[in-house]
Amino acid sequence: MNRLQLVENIFKKKSLLCVGLDTDLGKIPRHLLSEEDPVFAFNKAIIDATKDYAVGYKINTAFYEAQGIKGWVSMEKTVNYIPKDIFTIADAKRGDIGNTSEQYARTFFQTYPFDSITVAPYMGEDSVKPFLQFEGKWAIVLGLTSNAGSADFQLQQCGNELLYQRVLRTVATWGTPENIMFVIGATRKEQLQEVRALLPEHFFLVPGVGAQGGDVDTVCRNAMNKDGGVLINVSRGIIYASSGDDFAERANEEAGKYQKGMEQYFH
Amino acid sequence: MNRLQLVENIFKKKSLLCVGLDTDLGKIPRHLLSEEDPVFAFNKAIIDATKDYAVGYKINTAFYEAQGIKGWVSMEKTVNYIPKDIFTIADAKRGDIGNTSEQYARTFFQTYPFDSITVAPYMGEDSVKPFLQFEGKWAIVLGLTSNAGSADFQLQQCGNELLYQRVLRTVATWGTPENIMFVIGATRKEQLQEVRALLPEHFFLVPGVGAQGGDVDTVCRNAMNKDGGVLINVSRGIIYASSGDDFAERANEEAGKYQKGMEQYFH
Repeated sequence: MNRLQLVENIFKKKSLLCVGLDTDLGKIPRHLLSEEDPVFAFNKAIIDATKDYAVGYKINTAFYEAQGIKGWVSMEKTVNYIPKDIFTIADAKRGDIGNTSEQYARTFFQTYPFDSITVAPYMGEDSVKPFLQFEGKWAIVLGLTSNAGSADFQLQQCGNELLYQRVLRTVATWGTPENIMFVIGATRKEQLQEVRALLPEHFFLVPGVGAQGGDVDTVCRNAMNKDGGVLINVSRGIIYASSGDDFAERANEEAGKYQKGMEQYFH
Repeated sequence: MNRLQLVENIFKKKSLLCVGLDTDLGKIPRHLLSEEDPVFAFNKAIIDATKDYAVGYKINTAFYEAQGIKGWVSMEKTVNYIPKDIFTIADAKRGDIGNTSEQYARTFFQTYPFDSITVAPYMGEDSVKPFLQFEGKWAIVLGLTSNAGSADFQLQQCGNELLYQRVLRTVATWGTPENIMFVIGATRKEQLQEVRALLPEHFFLVPGVGAQGGDVDTVCRNAMNKDGGVLINVSRGIIYASSGDDFAERANEEAGKYQKGMEQYFH
């Protein structure tokens, strides 16, 4: 999916909502466990319930990989079930030397039809570039993450800036705002403003809203740009809103509330 | 596999050789393509041909993932075929927030029976710790990699040291030399000495020997410790030594040469 298509969908739906499919067999409603593919049955119901409000779906590949072959089958069925006008993210945090990153790019862009993949920057330019060679596909590179461990390296002083700032500034030169986004797990106003000032054009994937404590208004007020420019991911707050028979209904309600909270920022 | 078992095997074989199974359908001998599972047929022959010289096998998961379900089947057959006294590495470069890293640990330590997995450090402590909770299993954390892109961030000044030095020093405090190793893609004498001085006890996984230009003697002379302390990975130089019918025979010869080069460092 190219940037124009993504931006059109954002303005049509007045939404920045990305629904995170971190589907865990231990957490889905019990009655689904008798289905042939419980993970896909759950995802299908969640997608049906949220697709009017979502402009993206993020599949956390770890939860699927842990199930072995079965998990990859569920993942393939899921990504194929997502409506074609909704942006798909393989949240896989890959990154390796060039010839290996190329294999990962083929995995998620050709073997599976994702629009984008999350990429770890530690190994530098030749580990990221192979993801930028596919028309209409995106690398979403880790900038600042929302976990406690972000303090260990990302927030360390590196020359006259912090490491994550150097990562943002450097990685941005390897591609364009048409094929690179950044993971920005910022929840504080100043940080969001500072990152937006550094990169006025790029899209940010913002996790950490809901269960992890961030809020939609702070993100919208401080990080949106003229194209929207932000995908706000919510996983547990939507997909596990209820663990009962009404899980899809409740996911629909929660997704609707998030979208309503975003609507006011589109004039 | 615990450290004692690994060290015993190293001294028994007088070898630090790890064979990298970066098995690429486009590079294996043509006559194998008619096999039901060409990747496994190739790996099986390579393992048979090199197991007397190798103390480790490193499976580069990207090459398997790119083949979809088929690839995961080949990977599972391969890791199960490796003799139980040889150390196995899932070279997967994973790392994410805690609950997600936990899923990756389950993937490679429980769903598949690997002894270790390579881990990217960018997301910090809670992204690495879940890999350290399994008895006899190891996280092999990226320190200094051997690619050009290592200059982009790893070699940048970070306070009074370089970023990779800070990573080594910090990550070492999260576990012990019994459950953490580091990827050290160093080919220069001074760098190897400096890293060994910083971490006298830890094992290093050293890629970049052979096709990527490093040499065994420099690594052995400058990075070994009393337990061996180094696993030297060779991929292409062994597995693709010939693309003809004699590929296994040639792999055997090359692996033997590498082992011979290491033997002198065991007295």
